[in-house]
Amino acid sequence: MNTTSSILDGNSFRADAIDRLDPLDRALVERRAHVLGPSYRLFYREPLHLVRAQGTRVYDAHGREYLDAYNNVASVGHGNPAVVAAVQKQMTALSTHSRYLQDGVVDYAERLLSTLPAALDRVMFTNSGSEANDLALRVARYTTGGTGVVVTSEAYHGTTSIVSDVSPSAAAGPLRDDVIAIAPPDPYRHDDDGTVAEAFAARVAAAFDRLAERGHRAAALLIDSIFSSDGVFPATDTLEPAFAAARAAGAVVIADEVQPGFARVGEAFWGFARHGVVPDIVTMGKPMGNGIPVAAMVASSQTLDPFGAAVPYFNTFGGSSVPIAAARAVLDEIVGRRLDANAERIGEMLRDGITDMAERFDRIGDVRSAGVYFGVELVEDRQRRVPASGFAQDVINFARDEGLLISVCGPTSSTLKIRPMLTYTLDDATLLLERLDRALTRSARAS
Amino acid sequence: MNTTSSILDGNSFRADAIDRLDPLDRALVERRAHVLGPSYRLFYREPLHLVRAQGTRVYDAHGREYLDAYNNVASVGHGNPAVVAAVQKQMTALSTHSRYLQDGVVDYAERLLSTLPAALDRVMFTNSGSEANDLALRVARYTTGGTGVVVTSEAYHGTTSIVSDVSPSAAAGPLRDDVIAIAPPDPYRHDDDGTVAEAFAARVAAAFDRLAERGHRAAALLIDSIFSSDGVFPATDTLEPAFAAARAAGAVVIADEVQPGFARVGEAFWGFARHGVVPDIVTMGKPMGNGIPVAAMVASSQTLDPFGAAVPYFNTFGGSSVPIAAARAVLDEIVGRRLDANAERIGEMLRDGITDMAERFDRIGDVRSAGVYFGVELVEDRQRRVPASGFAQDVINFARDEGLLISVCGPTSSTLKIRPMLTYTLDDATLLLERLDRALTRSARAS
Repeated sequence: MNTTSSILDGNSFRADAIDRLDPLDRALVERRAHVLGPSYRLFYREPLHLVRAQGTRVYDAHGREYLDAYNNVASVGHGNPAVVAAVQKQMTALSTHSRYLQDGVVDYAERLLSTLPAALDRVMFTNSGSEANDLALRVARYTTGGTGVVVTSEAYHGTTSIVSDVSPSAAAGPLRDDVIAIAPPDPYRHDDDGTVAEAFAARVAAAFDRLAERGHRAAALLIDSIFSSDGVFPATDTLEPAFAAARAAGAVVIADEVQPGFARVGEAFWGFARHGVVPDIVTMGKPMGNGIPVAAMVASSQTLDPFGAAVPYFNTFGGSSVPIAAARAVLDEIVGRRLDANAERIGEMLRDGITDMAERFDRIGDVRSAGVYFGVELVEDRQRRVPASGFAQDVINFARDEGLLISVCGPTSSTLKIRPMLTYTLDDATLLLERLDRALTRSARAS
Repeated sequence: MNTTSSILDGNSFRADAIDRLDPLDRALVERRAHVLGPSYRLFYREPLHLVRAQGTRVYDAHGREYLDAYNNVASVGHGNPAVVAAVQKQMTALSTHSRYLQDGVVDYAERLLSTLPAALDRVMFTNSGSEANDLALRVARYTTGGTGVVVTSEAYHGTTSIVSDVSPSAAAGPLRDDVIAIAPPDPYRHDDDGTVAEAFAARVAAAFDRLAERGHRAAALLIDSIFSSDGVFPATDTLEPAFAAARAAGAVVIADEVQPGFARVGEAFWGFARHGVVPDIVTMGKPMGNGIPVAAMVASSQTLDPFGAAVPYFNTFGGSSVPIAAARAVLDEIVGRRLDANAERIGEMLRDGITDMAERFDRIGDVRSAGVYFGVELVEDRQRRVPASGFAQDVINFARDEGLLISVCGPTSSTLKIRPMLTYTLDDATLLLERLDRALTRSARAS
């Protein structure tokens, strides 16, 4: 297992590089280090000092513009006017919690459930995907009576204590005895194409068997269906046998939709829906409020009721007026403007463009995507498929210089993670391809 | 130990009362139950269906106005225009996370630290007090190498898995073996006035001894210095020997300032500051953003550095632009308008008024307060000090009818918890006293 964190350190500024910085940025980095905890990291070899954002663009303190292709929060656009207006209106009208009866939270819960399979019929609101996954694990453990959890080897599910315990990519040490990490369904490296679903399901079954041997009853299979931190593995039909194996072992299946949810993967709207499966619990967060903290756990009554009847739970901000108003405005934007269809269309155009690029750049080993979620795996050579980690670092830093924000993922931080917003125009997508091309060209020259 | 939750069930609507509701409210309660998880509770025998709020007042769907004296979030006033404007401006300008360099989070961290003792020199931002306490426990356990935690018997520190484990008032079952709950420093019921500090410290020391006997090294004493869910015990000079006892046992001291912080207790600004002590870690939340989810953990470098050097931690929304802008506007409001001094002044006026009331209502057993945080303990008779739980329920429901929102706390839900905002005027305070007087009068007649 890795001990460095691909999620948290795949693209990080190192303090010893401070002398290279502009005086303005350097001063702020120094003040920052003096007041924020040492866990804080900054992106890039030279941190990006942002002061403004609009639509698909962000601007730094030196007046430079960047195309944002790495944003999983402002997915309906930076400064989205409809969301700003909804939040301002709600803040002025009423901002209170869910122990007072309010229309907004009920209206939104109904609308949210209408995007999900009928079996998923109850919502609980939280402030972050971490809180949602924390609650989902509590529910799964309460309902099953077990504690054993199976996740993928580079999974990242959040920051609370029990959620970091099931997040191998953010681990500070070995996993707990009741958590097992398995390889994701990766047809490029681990599984032949034809057998990826069965191979993944076999790993799930074996992991629950091992947990049982260790004396841990099954609680949950916790899966991000786009496998975003594992390296982005969007092939469909990889999950159904795995879900069945988990359930056969007595586990609840939790789909962590923080990354793929809310139409990031296109018209399916939810990542798991692309696979034709229905989880027992779904968690969601990041893009839900376009920057206002709001997240949720949705579950089937059958899964949730035993916990709900026995365990008190209240979340002051979760389900409160303003986060809900933001979430509603975001959902209205996605559905009303058919941004899911836009994501599908832009995604196809980008996929074609990056696939074309792969003909010219032999460091591109594999191009994987669903909607506007891309993993572009870089290799030293295509035969041996050796991860090109250093090259990937060059690419994201040259891309920054070219005015394009992307990052990396996967166990060796060698897969470009490219996440344009749902609001991209064809011009934005064209610009993304041009800038990515230049970054790859400069990286190839530098290597 | 109690198995019902004073925090979560002290003031709850029961589903079997639905037939008494107005058709509009009843329809919403039914829709709500159909989509939200079964853990959700509503306040009051007849839920309050809120549609609007302004300043110190909230309004229901039937056009009725209520004086809000139970709000620990909107502490600078409902719909505070400065906070609304700051959020709107920030949402329009820039909304992104802390891995990009930004001025706002550094400016705010510096300002926040300036309100705290110099030893507390590092901030980490989260989305809720729960996340802040979850992180504080992780830090304490990492730094000490222990797991044992001592809390008070009705403590409530939040909703994540490990935080609910140290929240006896929200427990679904017995406490874990490595958590011990002790009686708070309660001069009314448990301790003679003169010995309250020593008695409390002795309980802390004994609890850590018991944990050691069970094989659990000390990790933390986790304390809300106003003991809000235990029944509000504001006497100063009760904490210093307890902190010393905890440290002698090898524990880190965590002050949970979610309830008393941000000038709720008056000019001290922080609850622990009234006691002349300095914790190792301070957590804060609820009123920090006046309804925008934002919270934080502040710690000494000495306590935080071992964790920070070893454990990756990132929080997408925590420390992001918009929550920070809200927090900054709230701090500006409190400091700029001297709302801490106002809380002190209004608190004294209310204290005098309620103390006068105690001469006329012999059900008032004890009046306790700091700033605008009140616990008014109700008893069957003053000699025997039998908790008047049913009477307290009558009072809060009659108060609702009279247009005053308050609630209850303590192990028997018999202490009125009254928390006016920092922005109360003398007229608001007068109205509070009038309405509380009428609620007590009606309850006395009904009993």
